[in-house]
Amino acid sequence: MKERNVFVNNTPLDEAIKLWTNALTSHGCLEPLLPEEIPVDDSLGRITAEAVYAPRSSPFYNASAMDGIAVRFKDTIGATESKPVRLAEQSQYVYVNTGNPLPAEFDAVIMIEDVQPVGDSEVEIINPVTPLKHVRTIGEDIVATELILTEGHRIRPIDLGAMLATGVNLVKVRKKPSVIVIPTGSEVVQPGKPLRPGNIIEFNGRILTGYLKEWGASAVLNPIVPDERESLKQVITQGVLDYDVVVINAGASAGSKDYTSIVLRELGEVIVHGVNIKPGKPVLLAIVNGKPVIGLPGYPVSAVVTMRLFLRRLISALQATQPERAGSLIATLSRPLASKMGVEEFVRVKLGRVGDNLMATPTNRGAGAVMSLVQADGIVTVPAGSEGVGAGNKVNVELLRSEDEIENTLVFIGSHDNTLDVLANMLHRQRPVYRLSSAHVGSMGGILAIKRGEAHLAGTHLLDEQTGQYNISFIKRFLGGIPLTLITLVHREQGLLVPKGNPKGVEGLKDLTRSDLKFINRQRGAGTRLLTDMHLKKLGITPEQVNGYDREEYTHMTVASAVASGVADTGLAIMAAAVALNLDFIPVASERYDLVVPESHMENKKVQAIFKIIRKSNTFRKTVEELGGYNLHDCGRVVYKQ
Amino acid sequence: MKERNVFVNNTPLDEAIKLWTNALTSHGCLEPLLPEEIPVDDSLGRITAEAVYAPRSSPFYNASAMDGIAVRFKDTIGATESKPVRLAEQSQYVYVNTGNPLPAEFDAVIMIEDVQPVGDSEVEIINPVTPLKHVRTIGEDIVATELILTEGHRIRPIDLGAMLATGVNLVKVRKKPSVIVIPTGSEVVQPGKPLRPGNIIEFNGRILTGYLKEWGASAVLNPIVPDERESLKQVITQGVLDYDVVVINAGASAGSKDYTSIVLRELGEVIVHGVNIKPGKPVLLAIVNGKPVIGLPGYPVSAVVTMRLFLRRLISALQATQPERAGSLIATLSRPLASKMGVEEFVRVKLGRVGDNLMATPTNRGAGAVMSLVQADGIVTVPAGSEGVGAGNKVNVELLRSEDEIENTLVFIGSHDNTLDVLANMLHRQRPVYRLSSAHVGSMGGILAIKRGEAHLAGTHLLDEQTGQYNISFIKRFLGGIPLTLITLVHREQGLLVPKGNPKGVEGLKDLTRSDLKFINRQRGAGTRLLTDMHLKKLGITPEQVNGYDREEYTHMTVASAVASGVADTGLAIMAAAVALNLDFIPVASERYDLVVPESHMENKKVQAIFKIIRKSNTFRKTVEELGGYNLHDCGRVVYKQ
Repeated sequence: MKERNVFVNNTPLDEAIKLWTNALTSHGCLEPLLPEEIPVDDSLGRITAEAVYAPRSSPFYNASAMDGIAVRFKDTIGATESKPVRLAEQSQYVYVNTGNPLPAEFDAVIMIEDVQPVGDSEVEIINPVTPLKHVRTIGEDIVATELILTEGHRIRPIDLGAMLATGVNLVKVRKKPSVIVIPTGSEVVQPGKPLRPGNIIEFNGRILTGYLKEWGASAVLNPIVPDERESLKQVITQGVLDYDVVVINAGASAGSKDYTSIVLRELGEVIVHGVNIKPGKPVLLAIVNGKPVIGLPGYPVSAVVTMRLFLRRLISALQATQPERAGSLIATLSRPLASKMGVEEFVRVKLGRVGDNLMATPTNRGAGAVMSLVQADGIVTVPAGSEGVGAGNKVNVELLRSEDEIENTLVFIGSHDNTLDVLANMLHRQRPVYRLSSAHVGSMGGILAIKRGEAHLAGTHLLDEQTGQYNISFIKRFLGGIPLTLITLVHREQGLLVPKGNPKGVEGLKDLTRSDLKFINRQRGAGTRLLTDMHLKKLGITPEQVNGYDREEYTHMTVASAVASGVADTGLAIMAAAVALNLDFIPVASERYDLVVPESHMENKKVQAIFKIIRKSNTFRKTVEELGGYNLHDCGRVVYKQ
Repeated sequence: MKERNVFVNNTPLDEAIKLWTNALTSHGCLEPLLPEEIPVDDSLGRITAEAVYAPRSSPFYNASAMDGIAVRFKDTIGATESKPVRLAEQSQYVYVNTGNPLPAEFDAVIMIEDVQPVGDSEVEIINPVTPLKHVRTIGEDIVATELILTEGHRIRPIDLGAMLATGVNLVKVRKKPSVIVIPTGSEVVQPGKPLRPGNIIEFNGRILTGYLKEWGASAVLNPIVPDERESLKQVITQGVLDYDVVVINAGASAGSKDYTSIVLRELGEVIVHGVNIKPGKPVLLAIVNGKPVIGLPGYPVSAVVTMRLFLRRLISALQATQPERAGSLIATLSRPLASKMGVEEFVRVKLGRVGDNLMATPTNRGAGAVMSLVQADGIVTVPAGSEGVGAGNKVNVELLRSEDEIENTLVFIGSHDNTLDVLANMLHRQRPVYRLSSAHVGSMGGILAIKRGEAHLAGTHLLDEQTGQYNISFIKRFLGGIPLTLITLVHREQGLLVPKGNPKGVEGLKDLTRSDLKFINRQRGAGTRLLTDMHLKKLGITPEQVNGYDREEYTHMTVASAVASGVADTGLAIMAAAVALNLDFIPVASERYDLVVPESHMENKKVQAIFKIIRKSNTFRKTVEELGGYNLHDCGRVVYKQ
């Protein structure tokens, strides 16, 4: 057995934060960085390091606020419509434009619209003016010595104006915290380099530096450091000399080649190694040479969660600010959320406003699933003392998107079809504020989501063996009493996927009894599962006879992926999935895929936008036909109403 | 009379927007810019120009999801605690770390914690595993051909990860709209250059380019162009060749040297000149050589308002996005808002949550007041058909700050004192999320704001002639029945301000009857006004005898500014104002300045933070003493409670 380092602790989160904060405080790591003086022209978005006061008033001279004539108010007294006052140019008035200085001998301005020229050098007026009328006096906007910006203020475009207007041309701002992000691992390779199995593409470092930049830091991505103690030691030793914060990615878990904790113990003090959170447990928090060194876990979701917990506040403190607080919303959980007792869990959720309900649906919980964070709208925290939250309960969701984006999200739940990606993209292209969020839980899952009021639309392709009819009998049975419309999206080919060239000579479903064939099934409630079961029954094949019947995937694409990777030899899926992954396709059936739309959402603008695309867009038809195996002759047709 | 160009129209806003949109559409100016392909590493914050699909699955091989041993699930069947299964290294298991590829002969992983080594090359396990347990299969995160990002999506840090993970190293994004901002005017000078009266510092261009950058454009600030037809013509002609949009600042009003509209008529087509909005009326919208050319008014607030109305959507359209919608809140108007019938008015307001009330208070409405936009929290639109909105009515406020910032705002209303700037800055320094917003409406205004529940605290220095006591009798009279605490902030010197050297030999208030002295007064309800009136009465001087008694300013600093600029010869104000503007000071009285805090806000954390500063901070005391004329021996003392 190789050298191992399995002693990762399980420190409670609040204790870990306390230990880390105390260590940072005692090493002065939370003290704001020194100020630097920079030109105001370069200061947009920076944080003021001290209050900015106006050195000069604005305006700095008495100025005309209008286009007109400058006069002495005394000369205008008594002017009326019946008895206008006549004024002589130069001695009693001069023309001024907006912004012109008011000549010292005059004390008011009359608008040009109220002036009647009489000959070349006289005017008549019919109203008197009060002193300083239409005059912007010195300091009217800002008086010298006035506070313009407080310390700790993020400089906005308008602030540039206020500073420059009063003669502030240089401003003291906080230095940007400098952070070096060090990807480690001998198996890690830069994007674009040739790959072999076992390689991991370096993308975490890009995610981390991206967030650091958004938080106001100056972040540098180091080249990849291999799993060698000395290389790691050297780069950390240099890092703490050159940067305010050092971030090491991966190398924090208990794997056999994770030297990070060993090296950090040699170089400095490890404050925390292992926290009772999920994802993110193996995080490493250390101080080396008085500088914070953070070892983030290798899984991308774990890395993002732990950087938000242990790095974000530090970056803000160095700028003497506090992190911008994410918005939060109370939502109803659409599915139960089980959580391990004793572990504080951060669960990514999708959100959607359907009617009056804001629904939160947990996404894939694997820590390696980058896509789950791409798609997530928010995060729900399940405390360590909880075993989970039941469906229908209210949860507090920390938002990863704006409320506006969430309100503009169209919620699709149901059977998976590749057409949905095309729809999502066309919706966003045509109406950039709209977004289609789709959860693939099978046809029955979609129908039940409609029943619970959790989706604007559901996709379904459930064949009734008795009637030979699609969807309608299921809708009558499960959605009886709910006014709705059933609209056909596509007809599509279902069949067995096999590797290119069909190496095992699969001819049809009858071959699934062969012991040399590993099948991959779809989950219960999926229309494709029903189709499989119906055809197997017709052939007199029982589930027990099928090798792999119990292995379930949730989408056509993951079935195709299992076949492409050799995890399975064959599985039932739509033709588009075979085309996408360059597999061979053995047709089994043609079926109809419909959209269920409750009457209450028919007038929803997002739903209407979808109707417009499927009924009118030639681009949509062309794109879908190119996917393979689709027939759109019924696309958009109402097949049933109740 | 010089050449004038007074024919600015008064097009209704919605018609102006329609004319402008139609003109832009017919010239193809709202078509998205062409895509450009850039490295994913440089794409943070850019907008995707087409959908991004995964070229490769992630993971792209079957990988161990845990540190442990890779096994065949069949070899583990039947393992129990009482009857462990023993496995041999190499033939039946190999050690794997998280991320390692699963060797082809194995199909599941057992966690290292569940493995008991026996000797050097054998292990025992006590539980069987199911196929693919702890294995991340190919495409578990993202299946090749899956949609990663839709078209028109702003790329976030996590999106970089999803792209790089699946082999997307180059991404097609929208070109940034290129905009040239051209400041014009012979009187306009660059910041930092020597100034003479009539000069205008070029800061609008910086504000405008700042906003354009925030909206995703690539904005270039042109050197200042003097008021000469030919120069202007040349720079616009070149601008429409080199840039997507040309913005000209100033030169759009009816002043005698505003050539912009003349030049634009010569070069192309003027679509709109003059809109019925305030501020921003003289905006100019034109098409030259098929490109949009926008002439923004010269007043900074007008320029910002009109760029938001006529430029922002254009910049978004060129990127095929829609502008991020600003948040909005419903608030209660604290003062009446008069508005001219027939003009659509955009009024800047400050917001503050006091108890349950979100109050909106209009700020200075001058279009030249940059500071009013710096301080504004939101904008209220008063439609053209309205004559205004009464106090106490609900208004919809478009937010310029986050709701969070507004919730963290401490609202001070009352008498002005320079100490408030110090307090504002120290509060923000100590607790960066907190902000002090102060409205200076005089002592009585503060007391009435407390009565109406509009402020957390009020500042007051009202002397009761009868009792010689400060504040208490006024509080009893106007705030009877409201539980509150009165806390002393400072004692301070009030006196007459005169120019350095006292050129007119002012000795005291008795001199105000001199006909060669121009006085500047404070507004009714100000404590300083009361002080003036009381002393004049004592001296037997009537208001009619004082030259300038009717001229009112709202703060000590604007009184000081009037004296410093020669608008007035003298005025009553605090010593700190004299020190700030280097004026001489003739003492009149020492007075107490107190803070009124309703009992209901005493436990408010922001109020407590203020108490902590005034009672405990030596920096506060030192800074205030340096302002001049302050005595802090009672600072923080409770003088009255009811």
